[in-house]
Amino acid sequence: MSATTAPRGERPGRIMAGEMAEQPAVLRRILGEGAPRIREVAERIAARRPRFVLLTARGTSDNAALYAKYLLEILLGRPCGLTSMSTTTAYGARQDLTDCLVVAVSQSGGSPDLVASTRAAREAGAVTLAVTNNPGSPLAEACEFHIDILAGPERALPATKTYTAELLSLYLLVEGLRGGDGTAAAKALPDLAESVLARQDEVRRLAARYRFAERMVITSRGYGYPTAKEAALKLMETSYIPALSYSGADLLHGPLAMVDNVSPVIAIVTDGKGGRALQPVLDRLKDRGADLVVIGPEQQVADASAGFVLPTEGVAEELQPVLEILPLQMLAHEVTLARGQDPDAPRALAKVTETR
Amino acid sequence: MSATTAPRGERPGRIMAGEMAEQPAVLRRILGEGAPRIREVAERIAARRPRFVLLTARGTSDNAALYAKYLLEILLGRPCGLTSMSTTTAYGARQDLTDCLVVAVSQSGGSPDLVASTRAAREAGAVTLAVTNNPGSPLAEACEFHIDILAGPERALPATKTYTAELLSLYLLVEGLRGGDGTAAAKALPDLAESVLARQDEVRRLAARYRFAERMVITSRGYGYPTAKEAALKLMETSYIPALSYSGADLLHGPLAMVDNVSPVIAIVTDGKGGRALQPVLDRLKDRGADLVVIGPEQQVADASAGFVLPTEGVAEELQPVLEILPLQMLAHEVTLARGQDPDAPRALAKVTETR
Repeated sequence: MSATTAPRGERPGRIMAGEMAEQPAVLRRILGEGAPRIREVAERIAARRPRFVLLTARGTSDNAALYAKYLLEILLGRPCGLTSMSTTTAYGARQDLTDCLVVAVSQSGGSPDLVASTRAAREAGAVTLAVTNNPGSPLAEACEFHIDILAGPERALPATKTYTAELLSLYLLVEGLRGGDGTAAAKALPDLAESVLARQDEVRRLAARYRFAERMVITSRGYGYPTAKEAALKLMETSYIPALSYSGADLLHGPLAMVDNVSPVIAIVTDGKGGRALQPVLDRLKDRGADLVVIGPEQQVADASAGFVLPTEGVAEELQPVLEILPLQMLAHEVTLARGQDPDAPRALAKVTETR
Repeated sequence: MSATTAPRGERPGRIMAGEMAEQPAVLRRILGEGAPRIREVAERIAARRPRFVLLTARGTSDNAALYAKYLLEILLGRPCGLTSMSTTTAYGARQDLTDCLVVAVSQSGGSPDLVASTRAAREAGAVTLAVTNNPGSPLAEACEFHIDILAGPERALPATKTYTAELLSLYLLVEGLRGGDGTAAAKALPDLAESVLARQDEVRRLAARYRFAERMVITSRGYGYPTAKEAALKLMETSYIPALSYSGADLLHGPLAMVDNVSPVIAIVTDGKGGRALQPVLDRLKDRGADLVVIGPEQQVADASAGFVLPTEGVAEELQPVLEILPLQMLAHEVTLARGQDPDAPRALAKVTETR
């Protein structure tokens, strides 16, 4: 990828755009080359019969971990938690993690606090699994099991292809943990992702809407909620627009006061139970005259101020997040360009964050 | 409380101010009347030997639940998770919750989705505990155990006294679960809270700083992180300023790009391990020339742009959150008044949120 060595500012956002465009190929690689290895890891973990699952991650990977939490609770019926790493790294908490599976998700596999807290979990009796884009990373070495998300080197600071690669890998893991094979259900995803990524003009029109926005609210419920969080993070780290994400239920608990005709709302509406549970929230937003953009099925988009129709026909609700995030990654990219900034070069970010 | 029946708008914010002022008395009531009952509940739960704890709540109570998660992980060494209610209420997930303690935290004890998901948890084998301000509520009835937080009726829409009452009740619970009695360690809190609440002039000067702010970032680490989240919620639901909260470590993972001299930062610095772990983040923020206001010990405030010195001398780090939130509640109140709005009457909020 010679693009990465081109001087910055020559064509703003080219690195991020290139990596977004790789996503269909990465999904194909995971379904082909990756799936058998994920299934083998899943079988070996299932044999250990974990009763609780702890997920540990930061930033974009934390949103992928939240997606896995929904899968594990709904499809596998296991109680789950997201870890607070500082309890181990700052406070030295020592827990009894017998019967626990700890899944650490990280693009780089290099964050020192993630490695330290995962190592402590293993010592405390947990079955440990690293899900990373770097099989040679300290995190992969610290864990008993490892899944390579096969996304290839990611050079743009805003993570895109590693996010969707983490989602699909985690989906296949959970399917494997319950003795299934998720590849058939997921096989349409690469082509559908390609068709979504081709609709750049539509996204550009949506981006015009947010060029002068001072803030945004992003909401969803159920499987779409991690998408809302990841979209907010992507928008903030590229365009610097304060983007607040809430589950639909939490939005009604307070932050709704902030939503009016100057706070545009983006709702991610899955085609399924989560989307139906979000409906009362959408109705309430419409009553308030909110500017509501929907990412979701055709009818929901038609009922909103604007939107992006997702091809969800025949795609299980739990797999829709792999597609949902694509127009939102594109939106972050386009809004940032429209505001005269470079999505490849957010201020102050380093690719591996060295918190301890 | 005749204040609550006065016509709205006569003296904006008087209901919220009155309830904030009650906090020292509520803390005293919990330490006196409440503590023996909390201890008894804790002993009965401890006898059941829960191995995993799930916390379930929304809004302000969710921030109190997060505080309990830190206590349970650090002081009790139990792995914990915050539940995603929709997995039960929207997706009908059925989990095996043998050996799990489920703690549902809610001011009103009336949210239908909280009641439904807690009922499902009990059916799934969990030991269930409701922590509410209403012993006659459906949530209290749905649970095997109940702790009354004794805060008295809360009428302002922004919750204040029920938050600190939940924090102290949960602290006493966790101390009880590990066979201790937290009342001695906490006995200074009511007087210290009173001294903090008396410093209204200082808070008013801080509020002037944010009168025209378009957004804010609030950060902390460890025990102070729930305070950061609750402060952000309080500011949003009263003043409508988009306030983004991040753990210090997550801030470095992306949102830092958004922080510059137009995004003021408030840092909650505990006097202890969490505060020390936050130090590199504070240094980085200072390097970027951020406007940094610190709520914390004297030296940390002196090193920042401005701040509010907390009386943390002799207060264990895990109890400091009960005090930390007070100047931030007052700040939300004062900023809202300075912007010509009424903290008692946020747009669009209902006291019991009827998500299902």
